[in-house]
Amino acid sequence: MLRAMEFGAAGLRILDQTRLPSRTEYRVLKTPGAVAAAIRRLAIRGAPAIGVAAAYGLALAVGPEMTLGRARSRLAAAAALLKSARPTAVNLAWAVERVLAEPQVAAAQDSAALSQALVAIAAAMEGEDRAFGQSIARHGARLLSGVRGVLTHCNTGALATAGPGTALAVILELWRQGERPAVFADETRPLLQGARLTSFELGAAGIPHQLLVDGAAAWLLAQGGIEAVIVGADRICRNGDVANKIGTYGLALAANAHGVPFYVAAPSSTFDPELARGDLIPIEQRAEAEVLEVGGRRQAPAGARAWNPAFDVTPAALVTAYITERGIVRCRGGRLVWPEAETPAGEVLS
Amino acid sequence: MLRAMEFGAAGLRILDQTRLPSRTEYRVLKTPGAVAAAIRRLAIRGAPAIGVAAAYGLALAVGPEMTLGRARSRLAAAAALLKSARPTAVNLAWAVERVLAEPQVAAAQDSAALSQALVAIAAAMEGEDRAFGQSIARHGARLLSGVRGVLTHCNTGALATAGPGTALAVILELWRQGERPAVFADETRPLLQGARLTSFELGAAGIPHQLLVDGAAAWLLAQGGIEAVIVGADRICRNGDVANKIGTYGLALAANAHGVPFYVAAPSSTFDPELARGDLIPIEQRAEAEVLEVGGRRQAPAGARAWNPAFDVTPAALVTAYITERGIVRCRGGRLVWPEAETPAGEVLS
Repeated sequence: MLRAMEFGAAGLRILDQTRLPSRTEYRVLKTPGAVAAAIRRLAIRGAPAIGVAAAYGLALAVGPEMTLGRARSRLAAAAALLKSARPTAVNLAWAVERVLAEPQVAAAQDSAALSQALVAIAAAMEGEDRAFGQSIARHGARLLSGVRGVLTHCNTGALATAGPGTALAVILELWRQGERPAVFADETRPLLQGARLTSFELGAAGIPHQLLVDGAAAWLLAQGGIEAVIVGADRICRNGDVANKIGTYGLALAANAHGVPFYVAAPSSTFDPELARGDLIPIEQRAEAEVLEVGGRRQAPAGARAWNPAFDVTPAALVTAYITERGIVRCRGGRLVWPEAETPAGEVLS
Repeated sequence: MLRAMEFGAAGLRILDQTRLPSRTEYRVLKTPGAVAAAIRRLAIRGAPAIGVAAAYGLALAVGPEMTLGRARSRLAAAAALLKSARPTAVNLAWAVERVLAEPQVAAAQDSAALSQALVAIAAAMEGEDRAFGQSIARHGARLLSGVRGVLTHCNTGALATAGPGTALAVILELWRQGERPAVFADETRPLLQGARLTSFELGAAGIPHQLLVDGAAAWLLAQGGIEAVIVGADRICRNGDVANKIGTYGLALAANAHGVPFYVAAPSSTFDPELARGDLIPIEQRAEAEVLEVGGRRQAPAGARAWNPAFDVTPAALVTAYITERGIVRCRGGRLVWPEAETPAGEVLS
């Protein structure tokens, strides 16, 4: 399996996703600032992956030789910096808060203990994310079993998480189980995560697939054959509204118009109990150049402007079900209904 | 005004739209084969423009020195070649058939007379297209008057026609009349006619505008402010179904979901009385490379495949009104209702 990141003595080694698929380049990040910058420029991306990367970023703030006071002040500064790197995915702030709230962090009596605790917590979160991805994959594969065709958007595989992924992991798991749905992936402008990353992951897994421009998705659905649309999420509100990569909302409208189930696959860390509704989610606006240029080459005339929200919000009413590590979640009467007990992996409550 | 083409002694001089906006290059086409090739590779494009270009292409088949028999056989071959250059826009076949059916063409007694007749007919069609565009612009501007924001897709201006255009001409006319709607244009993957051509035309007219990726259109509509979506058409069936650039159908679904009027602007030559319904329209599938590459640079990994329909079909139920040179057409009970009499330009029947 591809690994988006790996922590070691030298720092956090990441696969630079801005260069894929033409170049496989790794970068070693040695400071919280370098991690925040890599998150901002999407060298590492995907809601679960940036959560884990931020946890490792905190660990990079503290050296074992520092005074405890200095270590704690650097940790606080790193937390603020990392949380502000991207506003929409809740996993980022959630991961940072969670690390800071861990008892070993509060209890550390010297910087060596603090450093050790930070690394251990980040590693635990990485492991958890991997396990959650495997569970999402199994729950999702059971739910989607038998579909003749599936369409996805953006990249939600191993590159977007610390494990096998979310929505794309479901597709890979279907394949692993011997199912052979036709697989379609939106290219996902502006940054082409579908064409560059999802296609790369599907190809690496030997899964035949077809890319399409985002504008062609509704027409693909009109052809029949696509029996599930599955995407990831950057934040899911208390009422089930979903922030995800720009283009998701239009895709959900089109799926709805054709009676095709629209699934959102995400770990529970993507659910934000603090936010009541989707209109409260901060939507990141990114540089106009991402639209005006493609692959670093200017396409629009000089002087042209662009509107470039990185995410949109899909209302809960358009979501058939949420696939989580705890099982299948549905929205009923404006609130999310979770499986009653922790679901053993491989079992689906619905 | 920009001119997509100009006919003269040397041949048909076209502005190569594959190079815009970075380069303004003209090509002189001297044979029907060269015109057909230019249409196929979208050096000249837009349903009305390729109709007029094909008419001039027929004129290029016949030299004044040929025997009449040779001239007629070359004309027949050119007609077949030009009609087959692109399948979806009805204007192309319509223009070729119309030229061949003209009495002066049938009646010509020698190749000089035939050549003269062909040039005169093509020029008349060009003039008609220009007049129709001006009329569409006025009818549309009256219909859209007062909108705070407007969104368009693909390119439907001077570059797409022999005159001021269709949908984009309406926006330019609103501006000319002193209205100041916020103007948004989809970039229109795969070939970026919005980012390259519509932005170029709007910029040349001094109209501020913002480009967006196609996937962002539904989210833009969700923001409020856009009070009309206006597009062109490549073919409109008897029941009002519309073939237009890929992405149009999803845009129409999104406009519908938000109660935003969805207008189709097209000359009457785009209406195909022969075809009952949209599912009978031949949809051109284009090269996978258009999706896998952007601006000539590969984005997807080696081995990736793509699904690349150039057009989609929007059902009549999603179209608020059709803006034609004869006035405003509406679809009622599954059939198109045209203004009862020829509408004087500037008057709108609705």
